[in-house]
Amino acid sequence: MSIEYKEIAGGVCAAAGFKAYGVHAGFRKNTTKLDLAMLVADKPCTAAGTYTKNKVFAAPVGVTRSHLADGIAQAVICNSGNANACTPDGYETAEASCAAVSAVTGIPAENVIVASTGVIGVSLPLEPLTGALPELYGALEASAVGADMAAQAIMTTDLKKKEFALSYEWDGKVIHIGGMCKGSGMIHPNMGTMLGFITTDAAVSSAMLDKALHAAIEDSFNMVSVDGDTSTNDMVCVMASGMSGADEILDENDAYKAFAGALNALCMKMASAIAADGEGATKFLRCEVTGAASREDARVLAKSVISSSLVKTAMFGADANWGRVICALGYSGVDIDMKTIDISFSSEAGSIDVCKDGGTLLFDEDIAKKILSCDSVMIHCNMHAGEFSAVAMGCDLSYEYVRINGDYRS
Amino acid sequence: MSIEYKEIAGGVCAAAGFKAYGVHAGFRKNTTKLDLAMLVADKPCTAAGTYTKNKVFAAPVGVTRSHLADGIAQAVICNSGNANACTPDGYETAEASCAAVSAVTGIPAENVIVASTGVIGVSLPLEPLTGALPELYGALEASAVGADMAAQAIMTTDLKKKEFALSYEWDGKVIHIGGMCKGSGMIHPNMGTMLGFITTDAAVSSAMLDKALHAAIEDSFNMVSVDGDTSTNDMVCVMASGMSGADEILDENDAYKAFAGALNALCMKMASAIAADGEGATKFLRCEVTGAASREDARVLAKSVISSSLVKTAMFGADANWGRVICALGYSGVDIDMKTIDISFSSEAGSIDVCKDGGTLLFDEDIAKKILSCDSVMIHCNMHAGEFSAVAMGCDLSYEYVRINGDYRS
Repeated sequence: MSIEYKEIAGGVCAAAGFKAYGVHAGFRKNTTKLDLAMLVADKPCTAAGTYTKNKVFAAPVGVTRSHLADGIAQAVICNSGNANACTPDGYETAEASCAAVSAVTGIPAENVIVASTGVIGVSLPLEPLTGALPELYGALEASAVGADMAAQAIMTTDLKKKEFALSYEWDGKVIHIGGMCKGSGMIHPNMGTMLGFITTDAAVSSAMLDKALHAAIEDSFNMVSVDGDTSTNDMVCVMASGMSGADEILDENDAYKAFAGALNALCMKMASAIAADGEGATKFLRCEVTGAASREDARVLAKSVISSSLVKTAMFGADANWGRVICALGYSGVDIDMKTIDISFSSEAGSIDVCKDGGTLLFDEDIAKKILSCDSVMIHCNMHAGEFSAVAMGCDLSYEYVRINGDYRS
Repeated sequence: MSIEYKEIAGGVCAAAGFKAYGVHAGFRKNTTKLDLAMLVADKPCTAAGTYTKNKVFAAPVGVTRSHLADGIAQAVICNSGNANACTPDGYETAEASCAAVSAVTGIPAENVIVASTGVIGVSLPLEPLTGALPELYGALEASAVGADMAAQAIMTTDLKKKEFALSYEWDGKVIHIGGMCKGSGMIHPNMGTMLGFITTDAAVSSAMLDKALHAAIEDSFNMVSVDGDTSTNDMVCVMASGMSGADEILDENDAYKAFAGALNALCMKMASAIAADGEGATKFLRCEVTGAASREDARVLAKSVISSSLVKTAMFGADANWGRVICALGYSGVDIDMKTIDISFSSEAGSIDVCKDGGTLLFDEDIAKKILSCDSVMIHCNMHAGEFSAVAMGCDLSYEYVRINGDYRS
């Protein structure tokens, strides 16, 4: 089965049946940055979500999890600037936010997905939300502009807005899927540690939507690491309106496979964008581990390399210090044989082998420098221990990361 | 039992029966930095070692482990500038280094401890060693000067030389114990990830020496984290000459407890110095977890906080962002209840409570800034889940860390 997924414009409004917008509500002071996004479906959608694995999770994560327990949602409300985490009134405020959305839209509060991102430990005020909601609801647009405004409003330290959309044909119908996400610091393997909202006009049962989302997350968001920290607020949610007119997907048939492929491709685009936009990143890094003894080994090894502060700083300096790569493979916890490991680096400037059988190779440092100076670098590790592989995504560690995080709250 | 341990001068030469020195042998080019240290005992000593848990370990680690299998050693040879790791001829070179020491000193090669630190993946040349050995051997001194030269010669990116010594009285005899260590980058909880050499004139069986060393390492080197990476080359070795004249320690009697206390105190001093001298560090951080459900929980929680890049950068910025602390507790893997966690910060400028029952407390930001601006900061986390506690040690993450590691090989 070969499906062509076309990249299209429109973000979360690319699929039929969704409107979005973003405004400056005032969660952030002394700025006009957009800080409140809303996404509303024309009718109740099937829905699914995945959430942070951090034992300390924010109130909106708990509330959304309970709201999505029935697999139905119709709206998303998301603020940036304040995480609504670790405060005494967090749950109350998160529920009140959903109630406020319900009052304005007529959508039942339990069909509202609520999310927050920003500083932890400061009570989230309700006034910016209630003040801005009528205007925000009136401004919702089923257009690229609406999607764009929403995508801007969920950004925190992100430098780039992140929205993507794809379309594909199935059984004579055109199906659309689009998403917006945010995340740059605090991005680690557990569940991607970010916010992502996906919409589609495919018709998919909530059970199949849940299955497809979890599968897509596994290879994308869960393989991203920026700084090794896992946030309290992460979630990725998907809503399916069914308005494409295609038959509803109820089991793992070919239509499911086509949809899962689209969702996977979209999640890979979003996760790559998050990795490339890691706080202070100057380059996008990937580590591909091949020849591992198991799929889990491959994943753990690739994430160990991409999470290593020493590998990340070496890449920042375009330094072909493969010793740090093999060192990170060594402490990953996977039982490996250092004597069978090969390592190479590649980018658009070429490819260079630097380690063979766990030992050093003579290589041209100038060529290596040129390869590692590109914006996107791949670290290849062949373990020669089996046939499993995995790719982890991340970025380098720069002065700018330290600057951004040394004074985030100020 | 209360023993007074006095801090004294002399490092690895404080104990009777040891001579040391360091020279520039030429492992490092274009510099006159000392790069070869030697430590020789007047007679064969009981000895013990602990080694990196990294699956990729350097040749000298493997060679020393086999040389110490019989619990006897008489000399240490250690170069800086090259790790002798991940090269085809590593074991051959490490064994040849011991043979060269044997040729000059008459000490059997299998009683030589060999260690290397520096760049991975570049063959270690033997010539600098064989060229410098006769002069180095001739220069050995049983003095503070000899100890000082050796301690300097094992440094890499360390800014400060690290050597300490203690004495205590036991049964009418004065017992001395001293050590030198190096380590600033690549310091992580597993086994301390550094080099440490300890000497004592106590008489201790190699079995009891091994037991005391492993216990001391657990609370000291193994609780240090600078950047989350575990090196290929780490080891801590101890040699006991027995020249104090005190009775040999053969079991866990009071004399053992007195000695173990001294070894523990010495290791804490060395580990703290390593944490405080973390690459690019501007301040020494400790995280004390109390009220944990088990000792292991306390250890894991404290290490999770001290290893968090986001906590480390917040501390660099003197930012009381306790949300990052609770977040790191949350993703540690320990099963915790966020609703019972209290967090406070302290330093010589005072103490401030910032989180109670997992939620925010109103606190004075100016006072918090003053507390966090000190050179040594303690993060306290009370889990209210049991009676176990642990302290992890580390440092902040600064621009300088990135600079040092972005171009280490150049």
